[in-house]
Amino acid sequence: MASLTGPEIERLIDLLAKLPGLGPRSARRAVLHLIKKKEALLVPLARAIADAAEKAAVCSVCGNVDTRDPCSVCADERRDPSTICVIEEVGDLWALERSGAHKGYYHVLGGTLSALDGIGPDELSIGKLIERAREARVTEVILAMNATVDGQATAHYIVEQLEGSGVSVFRLAHGVPVGGELDYLDDGTLSAAMRAKRPV
Amino acid sequence: MASLTGPEIERLIDLLAKLPGLGPRSARRAVLHLIKKKEALLVPLARAIADAAEKAAVCSVCGNVDTRDPCSVCADERRDPSTICVIEEVGDLWALERSGAHKGYYHVLGGTLSALDGIGPDELSIGKLIERAREARVTEVILAMNATVDGQATAHYIVEQLEGSGVSVFRLAHGVPVGGELDYLDDGTLSAAMRAKRPV
Repeated sequence: MASLTGPEIERLIDLLAKLPGLGPRSARRAVLHLIKKKEALLVPLARAIADAAEKAAVCSVCGNVDTRDPCSVCADERRDPSTICVIEEVGDLWALERSGAHKGYYHVLGGTLSALDGIGPDELSIGKLIERAREARVTEVILAMNATVDGQATAHYIVEQLEGSGVSVFRLAHGVPVGGELDYLDDGTLSAAMRAKRPV
Repeated sequence: MASLTGPEIERLIDLLAKLPGLGPRSARRAVLHLIKKKEALLVPLARAIADAAEKAAVCSVCGNVDTRDPCSVCADERRDPSTICVIEEVGDLWALERSGAHKGYYHVLGGTLSALDGIGPDELSIGKLIERAREARVTEVILAMNATVDGQATAHYIVEQLEGSGVSVFRLAHGVPVGGELDYLDDGTLSAAMRAKRPV
């Protein structure tokens, strides 16, 4: 099939189609929308993307993505320095931050251990976590990995590494999601919620 | 809530969230993916978007979006000059072009008539269509608007405007979509398919 449109537009469609959540069809729709709103959307987006490409940096302390290093979370001195919450990815950090549930600092692993994908401890930011956990002011590490096989195996490995460091190690509670219906939950979640039943 | 990340990154998330098919959550995920693949994705995307912003143009003949004017479809002299296919949006033109079903030229209306949204004939590219339809070489106009109330009202209006111009006017066939299951089709489609039944 001949090209439908100019090479610059085709290239933009191809690149946008690589984003998670977008495929070729939605990328085409997005590009047409962008071109239709050239002044309101395409031109500002060009500037925003160039700015982000220039300034985005990975925090050298925790692995968060920000335009400053250390990131704004690590630089915030009102936080509780005794607690580090360990997450797999930056998106998890942002999700926890939005929930407002954690007042301490974070540590982004950058993934999970995975024999299948050849990801060992050295590919993740585990060594740096152990180092941070040994700082005198840190007394608590919360492992907030995903409740997947790889996530839990990684948590298990970190627990072993932290032995003897003197910090208390926690994991997130399992249970019924708020707003969740029992009928739609898997057996594992229901069993976990029952085992961890609480007095009312 | 305090900002999770730098203002340049927040701004990029806000802009991406305005694209059709993306919301705030998927825009955040897309931006993290972009920053993770900075050299492979973010930097090329910055260049592609700047190129598109500079070069994208609306074809002055048919309304297609391309990096040249007249667009590559209008400039293609191997096409059948006797037929113009009328569509609502550029995305419809691209969809028909991908199907390879139309060998003539196109005309993008830029939407449909809509009393509710205050869109009358002057807001659409209808006058220019009538003009093109009066050219001696044009003998056939195919109305390929969406099978919606607004689309069909617009088609009806164009049929009236084309009266006396000497061109034959067609519309797309209604019927069972290829691969479609009867049980899932609405009554209107089934009735249309039955009325238009064909000998095998």
